[in-house]
Amino acid sequence: MNYPNGKKNGSDSLKSSQKSETTFSNRGMTLEDDINETNEYYLVKGKAVIHKKPTPIQIVKVDYPKRSAAVIKEGYFKQASTTDYNGIYREKYIDFEAKETKNKTSFPLANFHDHQINHMKSIISHGGICFVIIRFSQLEETYLFPAKNLFLFWENQMNGGRKSIPYSYIKKTSMEIPLYFQPRVDYLTIIDQLYF
Amino acid sequence: MNYPNGKKNGSDSLKSSQKSETTFSNRGMTLEDDINETNEYYLVKGKAVIHKKPTPIQIVKVDYPKRSAAVIKEGYFKQASTTDYNGIYREKYIDFEAKETKNKTSFPLANFHDHQINHMKSIISHGGICFVIIRFSQLEETYLFPAKNLFLFWENQMNGGRKSIPYSYIKKTSMEIPLYFQPRVDYLTIIDQLYF
Repeated sequence: MNYPNGKKNGSDSLKSSQKSETTFSNRGMTLEDDINETNEYYLVKGKAVIHKKPTPIQIVKVDYPKRSAAVIKEGYFKQASTTDYNGIYREKYIDFEAKETKNKTSFPLANFHDHQINHMKSIISHGGICFVIIRFSQLEETYLFPAKNLFLFWENQMNGGRKSIPYSYIKKTSMEIPLYFQPRVDYLTIIDQLYF
Repeated sequence: MNYPNGKKNGSDSLKSSQKSETTFSNRGMTLEDDINETNEYYLVKGKAVIHKKPTPIQIVKVDYPKRSAAVIKEGYFKQASTTDYNGIYREKYIDFEAKETKNKTSFPLANFHDHQINHMKSIISHGGICFVIIRFSQLEETYLFPAKNLFLFWENQMNGGRKSIPYSYIKKTSMEIPLYFQPRVDYLTIIDQLYF
């Protein structure tokens, strides 16, 4: 596909084309929006069935007005004990979390909590494909970061180690996800290369 | 396992033992409660990772009081476009819906809607295991009903056919799920027999 990139300097064609693609991430769309659109695209095309789980909510009070829909009048956000996305692709169970950071040099581990890490470990032990999609929003770069790499940093943090994953480590060990007009975050192409 | 069944007539031992087990379903627990407990058991035992998805809610208004948690002040229940449960078992993607009926002679198709049926078809086309757990609460019987059988009745209904699945059909074509103290609804034993 060809998109206008609006860049004056086209000397480095790979970099130029990459930049042109990544401008699609820069239209006020969050990573979550991008992934939801991507999953919808995959679903319609019959490539995969992957959905975001609804946000868990503790419902405390509900009104049932006559002749209209029930209204939640008091509710609280609960912490998710799993990851946000799961589904099926090429007969495999897929499970991942998506996070973006404005930080340019590292990705804070505070984005995760124990329950999620344990969930990811269970998924891998049962033969599922598990990873994190990490976006450095200021850099306009989005990576597919395998969960097993995350575990190393998590354990290390537990033992008093650093509280973030260096950008340089992610860049060196992870594959960057191509960003297009459609699908916006084509992470299945990375899964094809990494897991099949 | 042996449980007191409190029945006077113990002549039919299979039926008697079944009855004794099914009394566990009769303690004011809903099918959903039973399945959640079962999934928790499977998770702790390392057998499978299967969760109920949170109920999707359209949040309209949220208050952010000082020094306390955000409160949802207006929200509405949304219709789910997928099934309620999914996860991984023996490296396979598992996806199902759970429904109970007080009806003794048939299971109403009104328990489903088009989105869910389409979702189930997609799951099967991608190689996942998909089914419905149907409980006849008055009969204290719980069945694992493969999704492909459901599709037949759904198409038939679309073409003006009957709006329910006869109990007799379910009993004849589906396996009954054994009910224990723990796990309460041991549906993985049925999956072992049907899908592996």
